[in-house]
Amino acid sequence: MPSSLESAMDTLIRIFHRYSSREGDEYKLNKGELKLLLQSELTDFLACQKDPQLVDKIMKDLDSNKDNEVDFNEFVVLVTALTVACNDFFEEQQRKKGKKGK
Amino acid sequence: MPSSLESAMDTLIRIFHRYSSREGDEYKLNKGELKLLLQSELTDFLACQKDPQLVDKIMKDLDSNKDNEVDFNEFVVLVTALTVACNDFFEEQQRKKGKKGK
Repeated sequence: MPSSLESAMDTLIRIFHRYSSREGDEYKLNKGELKLLLQSELTDFLACQKDPQLVDKIMKDLDSNKDNEVDFNEFVVLVTALTVACNDFFEEQQRKKGKKGK
Repeated sequence: MPSSLESAMDTLIRIFHRYSSREGDEYKLNKGELKLLLQSELTDFLACQKDPQLVDKIMKDLDSNKDNEVDFNEFVVLVTALTVACNDFFEEQQRKKGKKGK
């Protein structure tokens, strides 16, 4: 049975391909596929953002090889950046709690 | 309810802290904690490796700021690299299957 870390890695791969395989190159997300992935899988993250250009900006930021599509390697950059941001927030909260407890 | 992508990101954070909080700096993995994490959570990956120096090498590779500990940002580099490698393998298998089907 896979560990929870292995399952999490597997989830990242499965989710990417669930959206990338919808149309065009099945191993890359076009803008529509990326938008759908963000809306469906990162709903809470998108809900806090008011910028109507956000998906375009994320696409531009991630698409490091400028082919107007996002491959898996480019996609994990987004997931990593978001996870690091969440962890920074978590550690800050823990540190505040620790100080209060002393 | 969180999406499966959000749950996966949450899992990465929880697993890191489950091991980092065992001793010393609770926000960093020392070598013993890293070894335990790798043995418990990446069993299959470690099982294929015969190098007895592997944990030392991984520690050295990840510890980009040379403090002999691995913080969360350094840890996600490992997870990302492994996930990208798994995805490359998956895509290669899919492509081979696709060619055979034609």
